[in-house]
Amino acid sequence: MKVNGAHTRTIWLSADGWSVEVIDQTRLPHRFTTSRLTSVADAARAITHMIVRGAPLIGATAAYGLALAMRDSSTDDNLADSARLLLATRPTAVNLRWVVDGLRATLESTPVHERCEIAYAQAARICDEDVAINHAIGEHGLALIEQHLQKKGSGPINVLTHCNAGWLATVDWGTALAPIYMAHDAGIDMHVWVDETRPRNQGFSLTAWELDQHGVPYTAVVDNVGGHLMQRGQVDFCITGTDRTTASGDVCNKIGTYLKALAARDNDIPFYVGLPGPSIDWSMDDGIAEIPIEERDPTEVTTMSGLSPEGELVSIQLTGHACPAANFAFDVTPARLITGLITERGLCPATPAGLRSLYPEASGDQGKSGPHRVTAKI
Amino acid sequence: MKVNGAHTRTIWLSADGWSVEVIDQTRLPHRFTTSRLTSVADAARAITHMIVRGAPLIGATAAYGLALAMRDSSTDDNLADSARLLLATRPTAVNLRWVVDGLRATLESTPVHERCEIAYAQAARICDEDVAINHAIGEHGLALIEQHLQKKGSGPINVLTHCNAGWLATVDWGTALAPIYMAHDAGIDMHVWVDETRPRNQGFSLTAWELDQHGVPYTAVVDNVGGHLMQRGQVDFCITGTDRTTASGDVCNKIGTYLKALAARDNDIPFYVGLPGPSIDWSMDDGIAEIPIEERDPTEVTTMSGLSPEGELVSIQLTGHACPAANFAFDVTPARLITGLITERGLCPATPAGLRSLYPEASGDQGKSGPHRVTAKI
Repeated sequence: MKVNGAHTRTIWLSADGWSVEVIDQTRLPHRFTTSRLTSVADAARAITHMIVRGAPLIGATAAYGLALAMRDSSTDDNLADSARLLLATRPTAVNLRWVVDGLRATLESTPVHERCEIAYAQAARICDEDVAINHAIGEHGLALIEQHLQKKGSGPINVLTHCNAGWLATVDWGTALAPIYMAHDAGIDMHVWVDETRPRNQGFSLTAWELDQHGVPYTAVVDNVGGHLMQRGQVDFCITGTDRTTASGDVCNKIGTYLKALAARDNDIPFYVGLPGPSIDWSMDDGIAEIPIEERDPTEVTTMSGLSPEGELVSIQLTGHACPAANFAFDVTPARLITGLITERGLCPATPAGLRSLYPEASGDQGKSGPHRVTAKI
Repeated sequence: MKVNGAHTRTIWLSADGWSVEVIDQTRLPHRFTTSRLTSVADAARAITHMIVRGAPLIGATAAYGLALAMRDSSTDDNLADSARLLLATRPTAVNLRWVVDGLRATLESTPVHERCEIAYAQAARICDEDVAINHAIGEHGLALIEQHLQKKGSGPINVLTHCNAGWLATVDWGTALAPIYMAHDAGIDMHVWVDETRPRNQGFSLTAWELDQHGVPYTAVVDNVGGHLMQRGQVDFCITGTDRTTASGDVCNKIGTYLKALAARDNDIPFYVGLPGPSIDWSMDDGIAEIPIEERDPTEVTTMSGLSPEGELVSIQLTGHACPAANFAFDVTPARLITGLITERGLCPATPAGLRSLYPEASGDQGKSGPHRVTAKI
């Protein structure tokens, strides 16, 4: 999507043809800077420090990380060490595991002198595939938004979203935001309520920024506001991304998603999830019982980063210094609260049958469907 | 309750016998300081700038504001001007209006030379009455907590609360927190999940601070977390305060309360409201349709205050500078989501009949019941 009017991806090959550039997302919305990755260690650091984040973008960065590793040394040992290094960055991210395991298997069966070239080609393919998935989600979502517009008669169509499932979470387009960008570009009057998304504020720092850059009207609200807006008829539908979706349609997404889904249900407002096939975990059924919820450093809760009056990026303490805090990063929205899943293959209900109807090849192949397999039929 | 081990109220008469001291709540939890009010203008400023906040404490401060005004000049003109000044500070706060209108009427029918003395006496009475109301809420709530403990078998009893309805919102004890303090003091193993309560963070800055000072175990969480905790069985019940309650039991409280009530209902967890009689608005039935929701300055949303690494209190910018934001201060939790109201006269269901059973004198006197009337029978 656009940054200062120019089309930009979140990750790309540098002009030198081998190093990798990424947008440094830790400095948005206050600074737009890029970071150059020249080794697998750089790629691992970028993921760990959340310079890049969002399951699809983490996967793409890991793929380029292996390419950089193969450029350095294409031995089996370096391949194994590099894969281990990357997997340890965000150990619970399913997408990361699939990309690293899949690419490692491909490279192991490739002659050593061809590995570097193949790794770069695969990384580029993974990026392009992510863009194609999100573009397809956008097209299916656009058709849905056109239905909402027809029903409502006139705009604006008010959408509430949580966290960042925009193009910054992917290589381009985004998952939840792709339909919104396409509707806006198609001339539909769109307006987005942007949840702050404490504790890391991805709504304010990333979603608001990217909507602003692309010219989509939006309003920032704290996480407490969504229920009130829905009670007052100010939300036409909700849409979020997903970090992991079970075979039964339970959606694990950024903490707080469940509360918005409850409010949507209480007010008869549709709640959609932009769902790329690679985020489905076919090995799990019950999201609440089975998906492990990452607990992160409590200082993310008790502190906040922003721009000081002097224009410096600083972190301030919100609580007393000894204040105990808990930092759960995700919650699970049960399938019963979800109106529909918008996938790259079309819409389906959040049910086992709904998901199987779109991904028939995944049935009976529990836990083994990687991103390449399930996205082969976009 | 206790500050540094010593019993403290939020507002008290200074040693000089006429000026008024309040805790400066804008500097907590980082600084414990008091502010001295010597005129009605000082009192109005303290309310406007939220040095004091919470409906009961606002009422008490306004009462002392009129006393300070009468000390300055007891004329009808000064009484009318001072009442107007105080009412304009937080124009939607029902409690404030009742205190100011009630005290003004009393003073108008009092000889001019007696007004100052009567005003001080009435202000002191309003403070003591608030303490008595909250103490009674605490006792009724304690009995409820004892039932929860009996059912659970052993502690801790995990309670989730939103915003600050503790002693800092009142003169002493608090509404939602009074039962928790009494249970803790009675030796029951209590643990409180403290919601941050964006945008003004009263959970982190006030509730966490006062629980800490009194030695009640607690854990700070961002506003997005409550649903997840309830899904995982980590909350025994929720309890909040209320800024205005309709005759039908709809509760208007700090923005985000509704989302927690939805999560409680979805997980079969009791949701209680600590309800002082003076916050009931007998003139209203439908909270969503009738209660006006205060919209505050959007900079409360786009900025955050805290302690800099150098130990200075600073405000930082969270969003891009031109980011549009909306700041709704309250939402309405429909009566159907509330398990019970804990009043100074006992528990009742959040229904018209439930409230009428505890406040029979209020029926047929729509819109006129002030705090003195409905609290006469504690």
